[in-house]
Amino acid sequence: MPNWLLPENIADVLPSEARKIEELRRLIIDSFHLYGYELVMPPMLEYLESLLAGAGQDMDLRTFKLIDQLSGRTLGVRADMTTQVARIDAHLLNRSSVTRLCYCGSVLLTRPNGLHATREPLQIGAEIYGHAGLEADGEIQELALASLALAGFSHVRLDLCHVGVLRALLESDANAQKDERALYTALRAKDVPALEEITAAYGADTRRALLALPGLYGDVTVIAKAREVLPQLPGIAKALDELNALVNLAGDASVTIDLADLGGYQYESGAMFAIYVPGLPNAVARGGRYDHVGEAFGRARPATGFSMDLRELARLLPVAEPKRAIRAPWGREPALSKEIGALRKAGEVVIQSLSGHENDQDEFECDRVLVLENGNWIIKKLG
Amino acid sequence: MPNWLLPENIADVLPSEARKIEELRRLIIDSFHLYGYELVMPPMLEYLESLLAGAGQDMDLRTFKLIDQLSGRTLGVRADMTTQVARIDAHLLNRSSVTRLCYCGSVLLTRPNGLHATREPLQIGAEIYGHAGLEADGEIQELALASLALAGFSHVRLDLCHVGVLRALLESDANAQKDERALYTALRAKDVPALEEITAAYGADTRRALLALPGLYGDVTVIAKAREVLPQLPGIAKALDELNALVNLAGDASVTIDLADLGGYQYESGAMFAIYVPGLPNAVARGGRYDHVGEAFGRARPATGFSMDLRELARLLPVAEPKRAIRAPWGREPALSKEIGALRKAGEVVIQSLSGHENDQDEFECDRVLVLENGNWIIKKLG
Repeated sequence: MPNWLLPENIADVLPSEARKIEELRRLIIDSFHLYGYELVMPPMLEYLESLLAGAGQDMDLRTFKLIDQLSGRTLGVRADMTTQVARIDAHLLNRSSVTRLCYCGSVLLTRPNGLHATREPLQIGAEIYGHAGLEADGEIQELALASLALAGFSHVRLDLCHVGVLRALLESDANAQKDERALYTALRAKDVPALEEITAAYGADTRRALLALPGLYGDVTVIAKAREVLPQLPGIAKALDELNALVNLAGDASVTIDLADLGGYQYESGAMFAIYVPGLPNAVARGGRYDHVGEAFGRARPATGFSMDLRELARLLPVAEPKRAIRAPWGREPALSKEIGALRKAGEVVIQSLSGHENDQDEFECDRVLVLENGNWIIKKLG
Repeated sequence: MPNWLLPENIADVLPSEARKIEELRRLIIDSFHLYGYELVMPPMLEYLESLLAGAGQDMDLRTFKLIDQLSGRTLGVRADMTTQVARIDAHLLNRSSVTRLCYCGSVLLTRPNGLHATREPLQIGAEIYGHAGLEADGEIQELALASLALAGFSHVRLDLCHVGVLRALLESDANAQKDERALYTALRAKDVPALEEITAAYGADTRRALLALPGLYGDVTVIAKAREVLPQLPGIAKALDELNALVNLAGDASVTIDLADLGGYQYESGAMFAIYVPGLPNAVARGGRYDHVGEAFGRARPATGFSMDLRELARLLPVAEPKRAIRAPWGREPALSKEIGALRKAGEVVIQSLSGHENDQDEFECDRVLVLENGNWIIKKLG
């Protein structure tokens, strides 16, 4: 096997794509900053127990493991940064106040999420800790929509769901509570035959409600329909009220509701969302409330946030125009160096030719050239 | 062991430090861009053979290994990005022209380089491929000095060395050639007793020259001294001429020469440099020529480049002032949203208070507040 071959679902990012990712990264981090989010950089490696604290079995299977030569303990390479940032909030910053944090970094997955998906997403995201109210969920939803707008996606679909509905049903029925995991799996797959089998011995109300959930998806009218169909439990009423409030904060996004969707990693605890853009079947951004992750680090803090994969997002954007540049001759004469320095300071790309390579082409398109005429360095147009 | 504890020599980067790193990262990548360097992003993971192609045993020991579930093969987590970028040049871009590439990303080391050194440097660097002439070395040296100047380090020490001297001596003496590795090790450690033992049976000229190398360090006069002391071999003359030319390109840096220093990873092939700044015993930037790395990927290309660790560099910089921000009340009334949007667009950080947390303090210092007076949103000073 030739040694330039890369592992499956692992790829280099070449210049035109890397430039798009870098630009998007800056736009979004700057936007986070303007909303008051502070950047943190958790490490690529942690002890496996810390990395998986508060996360589900799913995450365990996705995480690459290796042995630490210094301690002999098992390390994990992060497959998600959410729990890392929760650890920073809970333990390192240890504030009692509201804390807004953001991050951007590579994560590695043992297996790709789809046939053509990368195993090295570039995860970017933002989180609010310390506020249990819906204002925090609203701000995160707004930030996610604003980030996608910055990337040029103004026509998006916002898909809302809420774990509170299922949670209220489970709390109202001891039988159902025992089957929590099986119910999660069947609901996420909208597997009605499995639901019918699992719920066969439940109370009639719980059973009817659980069987109704897979059908409760569609536009915002689903919320009203759910109020009619589902039992009058306080937890369900609260969840539907929250969904309604989030619909009102969705701006121009077209909203869909899916009450059987229960998010990705099983640590969610409230309203959750996924955002879809034209041209991609999978969600480009996912977010929601996960108040219990901090507990694993000794400090339960209300938490809500979102994240997305910058690599995937950048791939959807049009190819950037080649950047215009000025070709300059090689040399270190003070007048030439001064001229080149001034041009670069003004934001011009200036490429000094290396002897024998004056006419090379690359990603930059040299449309001008710096030449010496009558003792002065001047710029001439090319082509 | 509490699960918020991190492995040795692995750390989170908290907001004030992360902000410095992010700013430095942008400044330096932008500077690379203005010189015509194209950004690439090689993956964190590769097949181990690819990652170690052209690299020495040193690199093998530093590299974390894991098993790929998809192929059953051994993967390595990159401990250096130089060979990855050489692979991209040699195989993926496959240009015959001069190619300038730059990169920035985390690398992981099984063992730290020093007691307090991180095992997760944030490597940033730039490389020129396809030009064997000294102009390329000069440009890389200039770029490294310019990058440090951007970070605020204008008084630096540039330490120059050249593998051509030792190479010429080895080529002139078959005995010495057999001891290459032992000689490298003894020279890098300036271990004269070991050198005396190794060279005992060599020709008198070679022996005298090898024993002289550890003493050939100091200011630029070392070059003239070396011309007197070392044998008149064409390889040595060329190496000393190149060093002389690079001294002339060093600008304001104070230059030292060390002819026994042979760089870090044993893939170097010509002039090499290390840059030191006040307050740090280790070099902050290292660079040089390594023409043979591309061979491992089927295409030998002249190559020269440099890299540095952004985390270490940022740590040397003064702590940034807390960023001033405007506190705004929570709400989604159109007039308030419009005002906040306009302020953010103008570059102001605006933090919306979440109810019950109006007086929280964090990394941002709210010195102004947005208030409604007589139906208009106005900014008032605080404190």
